[in-house]
Amino acid sequence: MYYQVISQCTQALKNLEAWLDKAEQHTAAKKFDVSVLMTSRLAPDMKDFIYQVQSACDYVKAAAAWLSGQTSPKHEDNERTIDELRAHIGKTVAFAESVTEPQYASASERKVTLSWAPGKVIGGEDYLLQVTVPNIFFHLTTAYAILRHNGVDVGKMDFLGPMKFVDA
Amino acid sequence: MYYQVISQCTQALKNLEAWLDKAEQHTAAKKFDVSVLMTSRLAPDMKDFIYQVQSACDYVKAAAAWLSGQTSPKHEDNERTIDELRAHIGKTVAFAESVTEPQYASASERKVTLSWAPGKVIGGEDYLLQVTVPNIFFHLTTAYAILRHNGVDVGKMDFLGPMKFVDA
Repeated sequence: MYYQVISQCTQALKNLEAWLDKAEQHTAAKKFDVSVLMTSRLAPDMKDFIYQVQSACDYVKAAAAWLSGQTSPKHEDNERTIDELRAHIGKTVAFAESVTEPQYASASERKVTLSWAPGKVIGGEDYLLQVTVPNIFFHLTTAYAILRHNGVDVGKMDFLGPMKFVDA
Repeated sequence: MYYQVISQCTQALKNLEAWLDKAEQHTAAKKFDVSVLMTSRLAPDMKDFIYQVQSACDYVKAAAAWLSGQTSPKHEDNERTIDELRAHIGKTVAFAESVTEPQYASASERKVTLSWAPGKVIGGEDYLLQVTVPNIFFHLTTAYAILRHNGVDVGKMDFLGPMKFVDA
């Protein structure tokens, strides 16, 4: 399931492209700079839009790396503009998509260390389902909510992205 | 993976209990009625807190039912108070936890119909990863964001809930 779950999380990052386009259209129509949205927050002690996207990217990148036995590539997380953020997403997607299904063969046996849990490890499956998936969707939904709260016309289908429905 | 993924989504619903407790503590300290939070929204054309929780419950219940070959039990979604909402979560968790791992044996071969995609079906794996998981975490994160935006002291660990870390 590792390949399938991480592929779906990678698709969730790709869905961001449509939100960023709508953010730009909204700010152009309303005549304010898109950087206002990039640095908006839902509460003063929550992180801003750029951080939420970086964080979602980090969890995708880390899962693809650690669960396939690689060291997670270092991304600087120093983006300040929407185009830098697009490049960051693109770099993350490219890395995640470079990992092939056979590379996850030993994912269940791996132990993962997290910077915020010093001295501890978590098994591959628990890492995927208890850490990776909830964090990715937490940060993506928070990013979406920042745009939506500020009037950008994103909708649920922009969040969900493509789904493989077929004729009944 | 169906049992594991749905179990984790069910745990995510259980994590709500701590948020509801903190919402009550916050409103007691600030001397306003908790129903204000239950009916708060992040944007005028978004749904309120109660709906977000009901919707997360619905996606858990539906996945547990359809992927195990059962008809999804009908829950009325008519809750208006925090205690009614607690009961709704409890009923959903009880149903999801009543489904055993062997009952998901044919999940991959199942075709699921959704009310918002008439005339279409989606296969079990795509339903789980493209519909169930993103929707559950979307609605839970939106519920969390409504509380957080309104000053309730919920934190990321309340969102993530228990994780199976062990000593390194």
